[in-house]
Formats: sequence, C-alpha cells, structure tokens
Amino acid sequence: MDSLSRTALAIGQAIQDGDIDPVALAQHCLDQAGASDAVFISLTPDRALAEAEAAARRRQLGIPLSPLDGVPLAWKDLFDITGTLTTAGSRVLAKAPASHDATAVRHATGSGMVCIGKTNLTELAYSGLGLNPHYGTPHHTPARSEPRVPGGSSSGSAVAVAKGIVPAAIGTDTAGSLRIPAAFNGLVAYRPSRARHDRLGVTPLAESLDTIGAIATSLPDCLAIDDLLRGKTLQPREPADPGHTVIVLDTTCLDDERLAPGVRQNLENSAERLARAGFRVIRRPIASVGDTLGLIQRHGWLGAAEAYTEYRDLLERDEAERMDPRVRQRLLAARSMTPNSVVTLYRQRRALQARLHQELAGAILLTPTVAHVAPVLAPLEADPERFAEVNLATLRLSMVASLLDSPAIAMPSGLDEQGQHTSLQFSAPRGEDESLLRAALAIDGCLSNDR
Amino acid sequence: MDSLSRTALAIGQAIQDGDIDPVALAQHCLDQAGASDAVFISLTPDRALAEAEAAARRRQLGIPLSPLDGVPLAWKDLFDITGTLTTAGSRVLAKAPASHDATAVRHATGSGMVCIGKTNLTELAYSGLGLNPHYGTPHHTPARSEPRVPGGSSSGSAVAVAKGIVPAAIGTDTAGSLRIPAAFNGLVAYRPSRARHDRLGVTPLAESLDTIGAIATSLPDCLAIDDLLRGKTLQPREPADPGHTVIVLDTTCLDDERLAPGVRQNLENSAERLARAGFRVIRRPIASVGDTLGLIQRHGWLGAAEAYTEYRDLLERDEAERMDPRVRQRLLAARSMTPNSVVTLYRQRRALQARLHQELAGAILLTPTVAHVAPVLAPLEADPERFAEVNLATLRLSMVASLLDSPAIAMPSGLDEQGQHTSLQFSAPRGEDESLLRAALAIDGCLSNDR
Repeated sequence: MDSLSRTALAIGQAIQDGDIDPVALAQHCLDQAGASDAVFISLTPDRALAEAEAAARRRQLGIPLSPLDGVPLAWKDLFDITGTLTTAGSRVLAKAPASHDATAVRHATGSGMVCIGKTNLTELAYSGLGLNPHYGTPHHTPARSEPRVPGGSSSGSAVAVAKGIVPAAIGTDTAGSLRIPAAFNGLVAYRPSRARHDRLGVTPLAESLDTIGAIATSLPDCLAIDDLLRGKTLQPREPADPGHTVIVLDTTCLDDERLAPGVRQNLENSAERLARAGFRVIRRPIASVGDTLGLIQRHGWLGAAEAYTEYRDLLERDEAERMDPRVRQRLLAARSMTPNSVVTLYRQRRALQARLHQELAGAILLTPTVAHVAPVLAPLEADPERFAEVNLATLRLSMVASLLDSPAIAMPSGLDEQGQHTSLQFSAPRGEDESLLRAALAIDGCLSNDR
Repeated sequence: MDSLSRTALAIGQAIQDGDIDPVALAQHCLDQAGASDAVFISLTPDRALAEAEAAARRRQLGIPLSPLDGVPLAWKDLFDITGTLTTAGSRVLAKAPASHDATAVRHATGSGMVCIGKTNLTELAYSGLGLNPHYGTPHHTPARSEPRVPGGSSSGSAVAVAKGIVPAAIGTDTAGSLRIPAAFNGLVAYRPSRARHDRLGVTPLAESLDTIGAIATSLPDCLAIDDLLRGKTLQPREPADPGHTVIVLDTTCLDDERLAPGVRQNLENSAERLARAGFRVIRRPIASVGDTLGLIQRHGWLGAAEAYTEYRDLLERDEAERMDPRVRQRLLAARSMTPNSVVTLYRQRRALQARLHQELAGAILLTPTVAHVAPVLAPLEADPERFAEVNLATLRLSMVASLLDSPAIAMPSGLDEQGQHTSLQFSAPRGEDESLLRAALAIDGCLSNDR
C-alpha cells in the first residue's frame, strides 16, 4: 500500500473518491505501528477500526465529516484519549486511564480522523532531543548509518510520520517540541500562538508556553489539522502575493558561528530562491530576537520555572527517583532561578513581543529552526553533560518564538552534505497566525517545487 | 479662607462663579503647605502661581479648561514634575530634576489644575504605614492625643487633604497605598484597574501592580480627577439604581477575628443603611477573596518580587545603606522567594481574576479597607519587628484587589469608639471600573447623607 507516501489531505481525497478503504488503511497503520520500535507507547486498535468503519459508512452515504474523514492520525502521549493511560513518556505520572478525550482529540474525532495510538516523547516533554529510557528512543535513521536523535519532545510523532506509519501526528511545542523533531526528520510543523487552541486534557509542561499542533509531510496538512483541532471547518486561505510579502532574514542568527555550514547554506539557497520567485527578502538584524536570546542566556528559561512549578509535588516524592535523571535534574535545577529572573522574564517578554511587532511591521521573520542537524545518539546517551549541552544548543533558536508566543512554521530546506535534514523557521508576532499562514502557503508553494 | 472645607469640584465652581480667586487660593495653599510638618517634600510656588494666574485670566475671558480649572492639587513625590527632583521619599534615588512632566501631571495641567508641590511618602512607596526617616512622618492626629501613623505609602497626599491644605492630592496604589491612607484619614480614594492610566513619568514600584489615583474628601472629586488625569473631559455618570445594585458583603473578611470591633460595627451599620435604602445586600463568602489571601500567605507578595527586580541594582550599591532599613530589608527579603512561588502567583492571579468575575456576576464586593484603624506611631518607630507585623496586617485586605487588578474605592464608614476613622472598600472585577463607579456614586449618595 503506497498510500502513506501521500499527504493527509490526499488520503482524505482518495477515501472520498473510493480509492482507499479507510478500514484497510487503519489496519495497515496499526500493523506498521505495532511493528515499529519505540515510536508508539500504546495503540488504540478498537477505536481506530470503529472510527474507520464509521468513516467508510459515511462515505457510502455521501456524508463525510471533513476533508480528513477516515484519515489515520497519531497523538503524542500527552493527550487524554478515553480509556488509555496518558503516560507523558513517564513511568510515574499516569494514575488511571483518561475518562474523557482532550478537546483537540474530541474535535479530531468529530471531524472523522482515525486515532491509531499514542506516540513516544521525552519524559514530561522536557527536552529537545527525544531520548527516553523508559519507552526507548525512536529514530528514523537510514539502516547501516549511525543512529541519530529523533528530536524532541514530540519524538514519536515525528518518527511515525517520517517512517510513513501515519500521514500526520499531533504533538505539543513548549520550547521547540514540534519544530525540532520536524526539522530533524525533514517534516513540516506549525506552532500556533497559544490562544489559538483549547488545551483541556493535554498534560501541561509550562502553562504560559505550551501549544499544540501537527507534524506532517506538507504545510496544507498542518493547517487543515490545525483548523479541525480547533473545532472549525477547513478555513479558506489564499497564499499571499509574493510581491507584497516581505521576508526578513535575521542576520543575528545567520552570523552566529554555531550555525552549521549545511544549515546556513540551505538557508541561503532558500532565501535566494524566494527572492527569485518575487518575494521581498531583506537581510537585517532583528534586535528583539537577539535581545530574547540574551534575556534567556542571562535569566534562564521561563519554561523551567513553570515546569518545576507544575511538577514540584512529583519531584519531591520518592518515585521521582524513577524518572529519567536527565529530566529530573534539569527540572530541579530551576529551583535556583531567582525571583528577580522570573519577574524579569515575564516582564521583558511582553516588551519584546511589542518590539518584535514594531520591528517586523508586517514582515515574516526567517531564521534557522535549529542551528545544526540531528546529532548522533550514542554519545548523548553516554554522557549527561554532553546531553545537557547539546540539548540547550538544540533548543536555543526555537525558544525565541516560544517566549514571544510567536506563531512559527518549521519547513524543510534540504539535506546537508551528510544527507541530514535542515530546516527553516518562518514566524510572525503573537496572534498574527493567519497572515503567517498565508505567507507560508506562498513560500511553501515556491520552495516545495524544488524539493 | 474657608474654601478648603469645600470639595475640589465646589472650589472649581466657586472659581468659575468668581467667588474664589485662584491666585489667592494658590498662595494660601502654598502658605499652609509651607507651614505644615513633613507633609510636603518640595513645593512648586512659581508654577503654582503662574498656573493660578492663567486660570484667573481664562475665567475673565470665559474659557475655563475644566470644572477643576484653578483648583490646587498636590502630587505624591513619585510623579515627575519638570524641574523638580522626584525623590520617591528616598535620599538615594533622585539624580537630576525631571525634564518632563509625567503624563498624568501633563493632563492635570492641561485641564487647568494648579500644582502646589510634592507630598511625602514611604521610601520607594514600599510600606502601608507611611513612616519616613528622611523627610519625617506626616500625621493628622488631633492635638494632645498620641500621634498615629498616616497610612502609606501616599502618606503626605492623604495628610495634605485631611489637614485641608489642598482639596485633593494624587498618589499611587500598589498594595493599598491610596486606600490605606484614605482609610486612616477619613477620606475617599479610588484605585483604578491598571490599564486605565498611562504611568509614564511615575517612579515604578511593582510594574504589574502599580496604579495612580486621587485622595479627596468626596467620591465625585476622585472620579473627576481620574477622568482629567486620563486626558478626558468629565465623563457623564449616572448613579446606579439601588434596586438593581447587588452588594456582596464578603463574610470571609467579616468573620476574621483580626477585624477590629469598630471596623466591623461601622461596616455592619453601613450595610444595613444600604439595605434600607433599597440596595440588594447579600452576605456570603467570596471564595476568590479567601483564596487570594491564602495564595499570598503561602507564596508571598508578588509586589515584593517585582519591587526587588525594579530596585535590585540600587540595593546592591553601597548607598543602599542610606535607605530606610525597614524598606531595604523588606526589599532584600524578596530574594528568598522561590521561582515556583513567583510563577504560581502570576498564574493563579489570572485564574482568580476569572473566578472573581464569575462569583460576583455583576455584583459589587464590599469588604473593610483595612481590618483596623490607624495604629499609634511611637511603638512602630521603636520596634522593627512590630513594624513589619503591623505593616503586613495593614496591607492584608487591600492586597487582594491589587493582586486581582480590581478597581476599588475606599470610603469612610465613620469613627470607632476612640474617634479613629474606619473605612469600607467597594470593588469589582478587573476592568469593570465604570460599573463600579456608577454603583459607588449611588452608595456614596446613600452613605454620605448620614456622614
């Protein structure tokens, strides 16, 4: 079955056309998921087959619920799905099976999508690399090459899509947890502004930073799923006019020596391609990006203080000994943040949001998603210090949009000299999701022609 | 000159009618201010007389700027007034005279009010009692009785009005700094929702809690000045219909044994009077008030973390030794707050704001402004521990509206058995200033008949 090289929207169309049987497709996805290693934490075969049968029946009756009716989907194991444990990638968190679907799950189900199961993640979603000692570390590295990290925390969601098990999977993004695994696996992800989604039933990490979204092989899939998870129908969106779309390539990020040559080269190539296609591409430093990086470096990560606050009770219990020490220790380290730093982070964040809005003045911000490609897994498993260092370096750029609550889209920009995926991030000021999405559709139309 | 037993609006009317000469009035106010002890930190005689002359000229030409044209006003010494030092009640803060008027000062001047000078306050506005070792502690205690604290931090503003030096004075309120001195001096004060005023040119204390407003002898004066300080004309406001005004007397505050008998008795009397006048007075516990008190008790005062953040550099310099140790030590104590507490305070604050909105459902909240009357000054000057304890007890109730960004009005409720003033606070959820003001006008109409 070659269906899973298709996008979610194409599969939805094929189901409507009668070219794909949703029940057979669901069974195929379940088989693939069951055969995969460390990608899923649990599967939901009964629910998947019942939902697929209902979609097939609707198709026969001519009443599909949405353009994704019958399309299989996987959920990061932070989302409550009735009757399943929400492990959050941990062995100590889950108490009892969820009694309700999370709001986003309810909306997805209400639009006919088929729930295959729940994907792996970093414990408590607290790292950008995707290692998990409890459920294994999923990866999608070509056979006979060294295993690389999947990116985190939505590691299983990205690998499930990269391996073609499902056309799209849902994750969350606090500091980069959708965008980093999308970047490392050559996929697309959209982190929305926080206010866009109801997060009821989603295990929190850092309340003022958490967002939810899809990882998929195409931008239109991400946007369609974003609409449906919000309980909306597919919103009509015209791609922006390139001639009226200003893209600012932030030279602060570009001039950073930590930027890997392949990432830089593919970023430059993409910018050139966009300029040739008629976009107004401007290279200049965006001070609010540099200042946000400096703020985080000086005062620490707000998400650390919030995550520690969220999990403080757990961390003080004996069973915290059963947590991934890499996660536990990084959470506990937040205790040493000063009240001055926390106040400053909340306060400067608002000022920087306003400043970014002013600086961009309607333009789209272009930066790398991550400064490097997926690192090799083994040395990070072996050395906790090396892990901490690489984890921070991996999250560094994506944290900026998180702190500023900027909507942001990670998009593949090609491969580096070793065949590893590189990624671009397009973002906009808080709340300006729709203008970002229209610009991104135009950008995607230009760049994906060459992919 | 008996003019200063009149309200600001009555003085304004008398100026329009030609019954009061604004220049003579300004000179009288300046003389009184000059003869008072520790009430003013600096006077602005040149500006006052020039402004008064301009008002007199306008009156002759028939072009008054506002209903308060020519009315004298004093400003807490946190407001920048061109050419004067903004001391913030400190000996270490002021660097150079202000080069611009604060926005509120500019608007007051633009509506014709006469700036007499700058009033005393607790150093950096950081205490609810009003002691100041640098400029003296102002008070308005009848001769031959023991001096009592003025209330803080807007101590000089309240005492200037209580002594009849000016009909109204401007202060700020972070945790109760308008309402407490108004309560201790039998005056009215209105703390607005934060978003209501531009605070440019006002020395900050705690950025997410600071507000500005007037202390006066009448509610209409406070509201008129609030309008004018926002750069507006006097807003037409009809008092609410008592029959459609629900007042919830919070029994959590009422049942607290720390409530002084006189405060409780006068609160009960006022509630009865309001019920007799046709208001719908309901007695019930408001959980969001109790929960806010509990949150502050468990996690500390958000204003402490923000004030420490604001003044951290100053506190680390040698000259901090020249600060009031009561202020310096309380600011430094905020260093021991945990990041968890700061995160929790910001987060729960939003939840409690929403909950208060739900619980009140359009009703006005009635509590005491302070649980006791003005304490005797001498023991507090002598004993820092006693000071800290009484300061906290004084701020306890007013902090609730501050943390929830509730608009709140302190109104006199009579005298206790020793002749000390007691006070009521009427408040509403964040942003619902206008409905609070309409209700308060009706309430004031009822209660002030009997005062």
